[in-house]
Amino acid sequence: MARVKKIAILGSTGSIGQQALDIIRTRPNELKVVALTGNRNLKLLQRQISEFQPRMFCSSVKPEMSYGGKFLSAEEIAGHPEVDFVIVSTAGNAGLSPTLAALQAGKTVALASKEVLVMAGEIIVREASLHKAQILPIDSEHSAIWQCLHGEENKPQRLFLTASGGPFYQYSQSQLTEVTPEQALKHPVWKMGRKVTIDSATLMNKGLEIIEAHWLFSFPFGSIAILMHPQSIIHSMVEFIDGSLKAQLSWPDMRMPIQYALSYPQRWSNSELPRLDWNKIDSLNFEHVDYGRFPCLKLAIDAGKSGGTYPAVLCAADEVAVELFLSHRIGFTDIAKIVQKTLEQHQNIPQPSLEEILAADAWARECATKLSVDNCKEPERSNNLEIDR
Amino acid sequence: MARVKKIAILGSTGSIGQQALDIIRTRPNELKVVALTGNRNLKLLQRQISEFQPRMFCSSVKPEMSYGGKFLSAEEIAGHPEVDFVIVSTAGNAGLSPTLAALQAGKTVALASKEVLVMAGEIIVREASLHKAQILPIDSEHSAIWQCLHGEENKPQRLFLTASGGPFYQYSQSQLTEVTPEQALKHPVWKMGRKVTIDSATLMNKGLEIIEAHWLFSFPFGSIAILMHPQSIIHSMVEFIDGSLKAQLSWPDMRMPIQYALSYPQRWSNSELPRLDWNKIDSLNFEHVDYGRFPCLKLAIDAGKSGGTYPAVLCAADEVAVELFLSHRIGFTDIAKIVQKTLEQHQNIPQPSLEEILAADAWARECATKLSVDNCKEPERSNNLEIDR
Repeated sequence: MARVKKIAILGSTGSIGQQALDIIRTRPNELKVVALTGNRNLKLLQRQISEFQPRMFCSSVKPEMSYGGKFLSAEEIAGHPEVDFVIVSTAGNAGLSPTLAALQAGKTVALASKEVLVMAGEIIVREASLHKAQILPIDSEHSAIWQCLHGEENKPQRLFLTASGGPFYQYSQSQLTEVTPEQALKHPVWKMGRKVTIDSATLMNKGLEIIEAHWLFSFPFGSIAILMHPQSIIHSMVEFIDGSLKAQLSWPDMRMPIQYALSYPQRWSNSELPRLDWNKIDSLNFEHVDYGRFPCLKLAIDAGKSGGTYPAVLCAADEVAVELFLSHRIGFTDIAKIVQKTLEQHQNIPQPSLEEILAADAWARECATKLSVDNCKEPERSNNLEIDR
Repeated sequence: MARVKKIAILGSTGSIGQQALDIIRTRPNELKVVALTGNRNLKLLQRQISEFQPRMFCSSVKPEMSYGGKFLSAEEIAGHPEVDFVIVSTAGNAGLSPTLAALQAGKTVALASKEVLVMAGEIIVREASLHKAQILPIDSEHSAIWQCLHGEENKPQRLFLTASGGPFYQYSQSQLTEVTPEQALKHPVWKMGRKVTIDSATLMNKGLEIIEAHWLFSFPFGSIAILMHPQSIIHSMVEFIDGSLKAQLSWPDMRMPIQYALSYPQRWSNSELPRLDWNKIDSLNFEHVDYGRFPCLKLAIDAGKSGGTYPAVLCAADEVAVELFLSHRIGFTDIAKIVQKTLEQHQNIPQPSLEEILAADAWARECATKLSVDNCKEPERSNNLEIDR
């Protein structure tokens, strides 16, 4: 029988963290939670701790609990000898330093937090290789590519990341300026956290995924293509040197890539996971990418190609801009403008250290916040809250 | 460097045989033709022999050649110590006994001739396992499944064989009765031999493929589904126990699965092979199977499920019926009727020996020929030769 995997979830109260716990509940003989970390949602973290009784935990505030678990930092947890497998599903830049700690301790890291590889891909990949630690993708697109590459001996020729296009892919430029946070939070296909849902609507998310794919599969940017596929049934494709392609398909449900990372190289039967019904699918549709209406995509690709501290600045500026949009301070199309202006004002540092990356991140947050003052509207805009298309 | 593969092609003058030679020409350092066999197309066989100078050859008539190659039987060639790799692309039942000889000598067999596994799947699979000989599929659908299964540790849950539907999938029952051989030989997607093109139009081909998949992947009939996919871009799919699917896609070109069988487990770059252009694909379409208008499909599945000598009888009766259709002696919809009546008159033998299978084959040919007399039309029908829709 396989050894029980001892799992730490960094960011267990977020959308991915909660779904990871859903999978873990179904496999008590193979998976054991030994550590949970949360940030602001202390109530949920306490409920999770009561249920799973992890030996270690961490949060922004130390909860009053007397069940015997140790309160440690996320870095201490990630590198702890009692942990085999670290799921990184934190928001923003919080996952960066614990991921490094996990890799340096040779742990297997299942990565849901895009920012880790986007901000510090070069360092992360180097440390993983140095310490023979594995990085497993949890993003549905990267999981698809990983599944398609599994068992193949030759490096592929091209990766096709599919993109649903989010809720506004058919909107005109002028319609996009009128989009409200409430509309943007309604993703047509995927159920995800708030930040990634907005990133999906601006296509920033797809840009971050390209950078992530570049590092995960050590693949040149020029060979990673985007294919708009509104149904999100094909999660991505790989084209091999002989012209043959493999695609991975499933009902869009994040529990599937989460479970695959946990079961790999096996697959597990799980009656709770949905099945595709081919009696109801009469076509899979594809469209071209429109970089014009969705400038975040190109900003991300360019930042990825330039490398250095640009991708960290991109991430930080986007996080600030999305937060401002969600609080009705800027419009939907202002997100790209703020990110672009922040990038333009940045002095790039090639092959940065972790400290330089974190400094660029802090600088970008400040810069984006300042820049946004020009764009910021009065909170009166929230009068429009109820307008829906 | 990899050892040069010493290849025998049984049926080198057919469509698959010629395309296999196209691939072999591109890889002189990896692939060497050591034997060629043909049947009636002696002229082409002589040209191929002149070009490749194989050490052994075979044909229905011994050609007058003095280049030093040995004239041997197909069985002698298939089991010959100088052969590593046997491509079986013969028509009808001709491949059965040489395939057995190859497997019993432990050779790798790349199988394009469906009849081998359909007629004698149980014996073929048993002998391959006994002599640790590998069977590699060349059919595009089975190659797709094989590619999708590669590297996977768990047995899949379901196989989806895709079917283009052939040229008449939209025809009504009454339109089908009027179909001419000339129309039927124009396949909308694939360029193939005459027999398999007609089998594609009746969907008999898809039925034979289900039986083939059953034996190749030791998979129950109830878990092999058909999905109509007119564009033939997805060549087949595999559904795993976690609900995830893998699909293999490419431009429909038989050289791709042929090359994959030759390069496996590697893939080879080949600029002569076409690439899918995703700028030109805006949808992949699927339809339901209509068993009513295409009764051959169900006849084949039922024969496969019943097993014994039924599948051999199915193949033989179909071969006779297709030949009669091609020579304008029976109508398109008579093909299924003749096959059905022959099956009805057959006394099944469970777990038959090779001799019993060949006897059933001979019986079925006679029976189908006799039955067809009732359906046969006078050759005057050939007056309609020029009618095209």
